[in-house]
Amino acid sequence: MAKIASLHPETPRRKDTTDDGALTRLQQLVADDMAEVNATILERMHSPVALIPQLAGHLIASGGKRLRPMLTLAAARMCGYEGLRHTRLAACVEFIHTATLLHDDVVDESSLRRGRESANAVWGNKASVLVGDFLFSRAFELMVEDGSLKVLKVLSRASAIIAEGEVLQLSTTNDLATSEEDYLKVIGAKTAALFEAATRIGAIVAERPSEEEKALLAFGRNLGIAFQLVDDALDYSAREATLGKRIGDDFREGKITLPVILAYRRGGDDDRRFWSRTMEDLDQRDDDLARAMELMSRHRAFEDTIARARHYGAMARDALALFPGSPLKLALAEIVDFCIDRAW
Amino acid sequence: MAKIASLHPETPRRKDTTDDGALTRLQQLVADDMAEVNATILERMHSPVALIPQLAGHLIASGGKRLRPMLTLAAARMCGYEGLRHTRLAACVEFIHTATLLHDDVVDESSLRRGRESANAVWGNKASVLVGDFLFSRAFELMVEDGSLKVLKVLSRASAIIAEGEVLQLSTTNDLATSEEDYLKVIGAKTAALFEAATRIGAIVAERPSEEEKALLAFGRNLGIAFQLVDDALDYSAREATLGKRIGDDFREGKITLPVILAYRRGGDDDRRFWSRTMEDLDQRDDDLARAMELMSRHRAFEDTIARARHYGAMARDALALFPGSPLKLALAEIVDFCIDRAW
Repeated sequence: MAKIASLHPETPRRKDTTDDGALTRLQQLVADDMAEVNATILERMHSPVALIPQLAGHLIASGGKRLRPMLTLAAARMCGYEGLRHTRLAACVEFIHTATLLHDDVVDESSLRRGRESANAVWGNKASVLVGDFLFSRAFELMVEDGSLKVLKVLSRASAIIAEGEVLQLSTTNDLATSEEDYLKVIGAKTAALFEAATRIGAIVAERPSEEEKALLAFGRNLGIAFQLVDDALDYSAREATLGKRIGDDFREGKITLPVILAYRRGGDDDRRFWSRTMEDLDQRDDDLARAMELMSRHRAFEDTIARARHYGAMARDALALFPGSPLKLALAEIVDFCIDRAW
Repeated sequence: MAKIASLHPETPRRKDTTDDGALTRLQQLVADDMAEVNATILERMHSPVALIPQLAGHLIASGGKRLRPMLTLAAARMCGYEGLRHTRLAACVEFIHTATLLHDDVVDESSLRRGRESANAVWGNKASVLVGDFLFSRAFELMVEDGSLKVLKVLSRASAIIAEGEVLQLSTTNDLATSEEDYLKVIGAKTAALFEAATRIGAIVAERPSEEEKALLAFGRNLGIAFQLVDDALDYSAREATLGKRIGDDFREGKITLPVILAYRRGGDDDRRFWSRTMEDLDQRDDDLARAMELMSRHRAFEDTIARARHYGAMARDALALFPGSPLKLALAEIVDFCIDRAW
């Protein structure tokens, strides 16, 4: 399968300064705090009901990047916070994220055939839902222990918005009338709401003025949108495919993401009939994913999705401008490029 | 189908003093407060995402008894509370209960065939899970608005315990080795934890001394256990069947409740083979439910489950003893009998 980049030689090459090193640098700067977060996570996902740590551990211990809690840690330290409250709140953020993943993976009758090895595939829908509920409740217990009503407000609001975004996404699924604005509303809620809460909490525990709190909120929000745009592009990435990563999940579910919206709107009648059959009727054949990717290439849908991500990434970096220079500020700015450049 | 009562003429008859009137009397005493609760529920289950109020309304507006929020209202007023905070907290309790119901109804692949008209049957598993998450988050937002860290602690703890209880129940399903103690652990967590939080909150908002808070906790807890015991008996009730109510759901799922535990343990080898085939292997035939009910009658499993409920009901009523006499105290005591006597 041809690499996307080779189809468009004018596309700028991956910059050397924004490779995986950015992630490593941020990880190193918050390594001690992250050790605390990991200890809290392990301790607090425990339950006498053995299935809970088993199932939660399957996801939590499976080596995600811990990007969201890392953002809380880095934001708090960049704001000069010297305590340890932020590590417990970072664990809350990760618990909420994990609960969301568990619930997001619950499948409907119609998509049971996907049969991938998510927690619900191993332990069943019901166990995934209930362990998600446990982690979610545990996150609130941790917040109550922290005792800040402001933090509780930020995270309970974020949780409600995430759920709203996920429901909104359900109603756009299989609907090609979904506009770019609808799509942005979905990802602003289902993904960016937790990113923005994660970074904002850093300013809150450091008791910084509202200007800085708003700046960190904007940083998280725009980074979250960029992150999801890239994620949605990657689901159609020929490069991911050549790396052996699974692609096409969104396609098989009929999830209407920006690459589809762009390719559909830019295409002719033939293209639209193809998108309608595959995404709305879910009538899919063996080579349909390849054809979808080919249409996206032809209409530059992949590249333009990444271009949109760069736009939000630029806003995220600019939101950091009012903070004085520091290794953490630099690392947070670099993580924006890392999140975008992982795409190709 | 014969009535259970007629099989055992020595079983005491339903008392005239504890008919549906007890529910009506309690409802009347808290009617004004409940109007506030209903207004809060309607207002706060709203979302710009239309599917959320649609799906939540399906369950919330379908005319449940609102027993749990009623307990919060009655407990607070019995404690002399004169404000309105308790109505918002009662709405939280109902939201948590509704979220639990939505998540509880999510089915696994194995039980899809049940196909009843719960929210998940109408809108799918995923929508039920996500709207449950929304209601759960909304409950925490309401609690944060109330601003009491103590209430937040009680309800976040209760939520975690409910989830633990539901997971524990999953692991006892289809397992006839489940003991009465295991079963009590499950219902103490999945049902009684919310009852006890609901009544305890009444004492907390009224700022009563810890002795009264503990008494209301004990009242709620024991009432919750009695309530679930009766609920589990009703799933095998010939009287319910003659009233046209659906019975046998627990049987079809292989849920190990006390009537099964008692009938299984008191039965001979033949009986045990029957229980093993139907509850563990879920190999069920048309007349198996009738046979299960016949075995329960023969071994007095139904009556003894109700007898256990009476034991917890007596403890619930005794927990009220330290409060001075009042119409609300009387109504709360009567509601215990109402919960038990609805069984036959």
